[in-house]
Amino acid sequence: MIKVGVVGGTGYTGVELLRLLAMHPNVALQVVTSRSEKGTRVSDMFPNLRGHVDIEFSDPDVDVLVQCDLVFFATPNGVAMKMVPKLLSKGVKVIDLAADFRLKSAEEWERWYGMPHACPELLSEAVYGLPEFFREQIKGASLVANPGCYPTSVQLGYAPLMKLGLIDANNLIADCKSGASGAGRNPSVGFLLGECSESVKAYAVAGHRHNPEITQGLNTIASGVNLTFVPHLMPMIRGIHSTLYATLLEEKVDLQAIYEQHYANEPFVDVMPAGAQPETRSVKGSNMCRLAIHRPNNGKTVVILSVIDNLLKGAAGQAIQNMNILFDLGETKGLESIAILP
Amino acid sequence: MIKVGVVGGTGYTGVELLRLLAMHPNVALQVVTSRSEKGTRVSDMFPNLRGHVDIEFSDPDVDVLVQCDLVFFATPNGVAMKMVPKLLSKGVKVIDLAADFRLKSAEEWERWYGMPHACPELLSEAVYGLPEFFREQIKGASLVANPGCYPTSVQLGYAPLMKLGLIDANNLIADCKSGASGAGRNPSVGFLLGECSESVKAYAVAGHRHNPEITQGLNTIASGVNLTFVPHLMPMIRGIHSTLYATLLEEKVDLQAIYEQHYANEPFVDVMPAGAQPETRSVKGSNMCRLAIHRPNNGKTVVILSVIDNLLKGAAGQAIQNMNILFDLGETKGLESIAILP
Amino acid sequence: MIKVGVVGGTGYTGVELLRLLAMHPNVALQVVTSRSEKGTRVSDMFPNLRGHVDIEFSDPDVDVLVQCDLVFFATPNGVAMKMVPKLLSKGVKVIDLAADFRLKSAEEWERWYGMPHACPELLSEAVYGLPEFFREQIKGASLVANPGCYPTSVQLGYAPLMKLGLIDANNLIADCKSGASGAGRNPSVGFLLGECSESVKAYAVAGHRHNPEITQGLNTIASGVNLTFVPHLMPMIRGIHSTLYATLLEEKVDLQAIYEQHYANEPFVDVMPAGAQPETRSVKGSNMCRLAIHRPNNGKTVVILSVIDNLLKGAAGQAIQNMNILFDLGETKGLESIAILP
Amino acid sequence: MIKVGVVGGTGYTGVELLRLLAMHPNVALQVVTSRSEKGTRVSDMFPNLRGHVDIEFSDPDVDVLVQCDLVFFATPNGVAMKMVPKLLSKGVKVIDLAADFRLKSAEEWERWYGMPHACPELLSEAVYGLPEFFREQIKGASLVANPGCYPTSVQLGYAPLMKLGLIDANNLIADCKSGASGAGRNPSVGFLLGECSESVKAYAVAGHRHNPEITQGLNTIASGVNLTFVPHLMPMIRGIHSTLYATLLEEKVDLQAIYEQHYANEPFVDVMPAGAQPETRSVKGSNMCRLAIHRPNNGKTVVILSVIDNLLKGAAGQAIQNMNILFDLGETKGLESIAILP
Repeated sequence: MIKVGVVGGTGYTGVELLRLLAMHPNVALQVVTSRSEKGTRVSDMFPNLRGHVDIEFSDPDVDVLVQCDLVFFATPNGVAMKMVPKLLSKGVKVIDLAADFRLKSAEEWERWYGMPHACPELLSEAVYGLPEFFREQIKGASLVANPGCYPTSVQLGYAPLMKLGLIDANNLIADCKSGASGAGRNPSVGFLLGECSESVKAYAVAGHRHNPEITQGLNTIASGVNLTFVPHLMPMIRGIHSTLYATLLEEKVDLQAIYEQHYANEPFVDVMPAGAQPETRSVKGSNMCRLAIHRPNNGKTVVILSVIDNLLKGAAGQAIQNMNILFDLGETKGLESIAILP
Repeated sequence: MIKVGVVGGTGYTGVELLRLLAMHPNVALQVVTSRSEKGTRVSDMFPNLRGHVDIEFSDPDVDVLVQCDLVFFATPNGVAMKMVPKLLSKGVKVIDLAADFRLKSAEEWERWYGMPHACPELLSEAVYGLPEFFREQIKGASLVANPGCYPTSVQLGYAPLMKLGLIDANNLIADCKSGASGAGRNPSVGFLLGECSESVKAYAVAGHRHNPEITQGLNTIASGVNLTFVPHLMPMIRGIHSTLYATLLEEKVDLQAIYEQHYANEPFVDVMPAGAQPETRSVKGSNMCRLAIHRPNNGKTVVILSVIDNLLKGAAGQAIQNMNILFDLGETKGLESIAILP
Repeated sequence: MIKVGVVGGTGYTGVELLRLLAMHPNVALQVVTSRSEKGTRVSDMFPNLRGHVDIEFSDPDVDVLVQCDLVFFATPNGVAMKMVPKLLSKGVKVIDLAADFRLKSAEEWERWYGMPHACPELLSEAVYGLPEFFREQIKGASLVANPGCYPTSVQLGYAPLMKLGLIDANNLIADCKSGASGAGRNPSVGFLLGECSESVKAYAVAGHRHNPEITQGLNTIASGVNLTFVPHLMPMIRGIHSTLYATLLEEKVDLQAIYEQHYANEPFVDVMPAGAQPETRSVKGSNMCRLAIHRPNNGKTVVILSVIDNLLKGAAGQAIQNMNILFDLGETKGLESIAILP
Repeated sequence: MIKVGVVGGTGYTGVELLRLLAMHPNVALQVVTSRSEKGTRVSDMFPNLRGHVDIEFSDPDVDVLVQCDLVFFATPNGVAMKMVPKLLSKGVKVIDLAADFRLKSAEEWERWYGMPHACPELLSEAVYGLPEFFREQIKGASLVANPGCYPTSVQLGYAPLMKLGLIDANNLIADCKSGASGAGRNPSVGFLLGECSESVKAYAVAGHRHNPEITQGLNTIASGVNLTFVPHLMPMIRGIHSTLYATLLEEKVDLQAIYEQHYANEPFVDVMPAGAQPETRSVKGSNMCRLAIHRPNNGKTVVILSVIDNLLKGAAGQAIQNMNILFDLGETKGLESIAILP
């Protein structure tokens, strides 16, 4: 059994991670921390966990966490980077679900996240935890930077065409739609049901932190990536639907075959049949990413549809997938649940 | 492995049953029937099942179904009763998720369901599949009538007090709220998102088929049951919240202790701590029923709150629980999933 | 033109009040205050008001407010009572949409609202602004206590039967369902879309502030009122559905006729045809209350269904109705909008 | 008073049109037809209209309709074209809210709508009822083809830049999001709350009927228009959010000023302040289109955000606006309602 700690278990990413850990056959959950909820039983805050998680939130204490084999950070940005160096020095592996170690450039990180980085020397060591891109590197990693939700759906969508150089990397448009759980479980007027139910809006049109993350990732398989990325808030809880546009550089391509071959061996990427238009609910509660590729009117513009559950493949599920790889447990262990429909 | 057939797999109860069966370690799904969708791959209709259910819908054919150990009916009312006698005669066990075998009186059944019963002689043989009431009888049954969704939540809520004779059985009020999936997956104007989203209404106030079912069940532990039952349609997909009112006959009672003791050994009934007010989402995707008992102002009226997922404990989950009992598989097998929150 | 001021215009009640005032032909909106949003244009916070409300939020200043003919308070409980005495002393009329002046007993108010009352001497002078109960008194009032949302729907529902003494006042059950806008526009985890969408729950089962308000109101037309009141949170924005239960004291009554006669001349109470089951959406955006009366199985229990838009007849709409009465403008002026469906 | 008839009043467009007509000071509603609902009181089907619309649905009868000054068609595609010639010949003006007269080419119409056109000779006579494009032509028209919902939001969004030749007309991408009411009020599994709530999907990616309509419209102000149009279904009732992408042809442009000047005198187009990101709810229940223009990172790609209420500016509201122009009633008459928020 792998001894696991979770730092910051009170958000949506945290509760989903706890749910998955509680059902995982190889995990012994040792400690869940929350400064604000110290002493509260986890299952009092999240009644779905009653009978499954029987511990209390405790203060985050590195001396306790070092007794774990693996620590997940499900904290706001900027928290993990202060505790990770000590954990790594004691041989504890770390998966950070926040953004602290996603960007390779400290300067860029600081520009987008508005604070100095506490341990820029770890940025090159951290492995970006998108298994479909970096599975081999994850296997030997000590520190995994779990990808953002939008970046997961966008990179998986563009990868097959970019790798073959079939689209103009310099002119990408990603129109992304996310459920409100992506904003976290913080008191905030903007995410009240009264505000964001029965309405749709774009946000961060001028620039979103996930753009440099996506661009960095896609630049590992192509060059000169330039992306217009517009996220939208949907009146629903879970799910991301990324509609990706690109300009084809070659006329004669079998798009369907390219996608099917590229992802033939991936357990968590499902290429839908030609013509399909996946719904986000088809992955609700599962770690799957479903893709479909279209070329309207047989023109030069391709349209890729990519759906994930932002809390699973976009966060906690992918973190479990990374844990499985890190500890050689079998990549799908504990992630076999079928999406709930309806 | 138990060989299982499903008749009528195209509704919400059907797809949920298929999801649970696909994850069950002791089940071999042999056949799924649908007259209208014959030849369609199950996973083309329900993409969440891609990679998990690899068969096509076929015509319902008793000669095929008799090769199963167990057949579930997830059909409209009135279908199962035409096929069940032959299946039983061949030694196939049956769990009917519709209402065909729930009422003991053929006359009453015909009055509420508006058609003659095809095999009234089986009504007494059928066991009402509420394990918390009839576990022993289910063990030896050939034909299980899986309870309705409202009846499950209401009977579990009232049972502890009725069994002890502590409330006036003649004056019960059940104000029940259900998500729209309870109405099934049929083309119907009234259940369009445009009709029932952002709105709440009562329905069937004059009388609902679940009233005689509840009354019959409660009369097995008390007598003279008289229930005012008002169901309401909620603007959500899943979940039932039953708010149950009753008049206490004794002043000095420890309601919390009564409920905790009554359900101490039940794997799928969770008595919440005193003062709790369970949310339907705390059971979304799980087979759990959560109960809380209140006595406002220490008065004579008790208020019991009972929540279930109408498609799990209110339908397909309870059907799996019954299968587990019938075949002695361990009552919780395949039903360990933790509710999804948010 | 009536010169109107609004204290506290940043909540849901406030923005709805501003919308109605902006469309009212007899109103000149002079000032809208908000301590926290001072200097913000009202229409920057609420873009629906662009082109209709062209002023900024200002600090609440009694010396400015006294230049109005009428001041509405759309503030949290406990704010109005500190400013109202001075306004009244200068001849300004006041309609308080909060609870400060709803209860006649200062002791009871203090028990339920948890603070001392700043001007208990005004409690008897204040008129409870439910026109269907107190129209004549409102006409000559200086201070109107606008009713709560639940109390409006419940009192209008029970009134016809209570006035005739046809039901047991000592044993009332009101099972009420409200949209999330009823909780206001404050940063709060519990009302995030991620928390309260796709879920239903009861709250304040042990006791809710609206119970003494309802009881006080019903006791003006009957005696010995005892009410079990259980509010529930619905996954929608607007609307209240109150399901009211009572025990009939007489067998032979024409319930439909009683309701139709009682409300024959009320512009904002619509008695639906016999057998109807009103939806909350049928009043969305309108000041109407729709009622239906049922007697299941011709038994002793009556079931009254009462729906309102909590922000209109349950708050801002009723406040406008009260203004119309106070200033003799015609009770329906500015409230002619038809409910929006779907 | 203008004598008005409505053919096909049982859908969402129909009920919204009836609501607006009932509140319009210059309209006398004479007749509302529905073959299937003949004899039903309109307000029994749509209780929000109780007290406002006091007639019954009747059979569509041209001899009755010719007594009107104006007939609206809120029918499925292909119905109006069979009745319009006779109405026009009798001097009755017609506004068709369906698609029968939107395309100028009968061949193209027949290709997209899958049936022969009954009166292709009227296609050139019909005026496309987008007042911001064709106000002068509408004034003298007999037959107005009311635009589609998506086309309204997309054309208004692109127009200012296309008119000045500032964007590459040959490479437009419109990613559009619509509430479920856009699909109408027909029994259909795909639009059940259980199917399309809590989910997002693209549809008609291969080609949608609104693409030729948009292209035809934009080609009146530019040339060589080529549009990739991907509509998406949102889990909400009302609202369209169009996110429009285009490539700038000139570097130095003051986009904000261009939009503000272009729409300076339009009563129903609101150019938001620079940096704004309009929500669909800001126009819910109103006839307004709100636009915002962005240029992320000061690059070559512009992003235009365009929101409307699909049932108002996207259908019935625009039809009223066209009526006001046709009969010189004042363009905003009966359309003054402020959007409902929340």
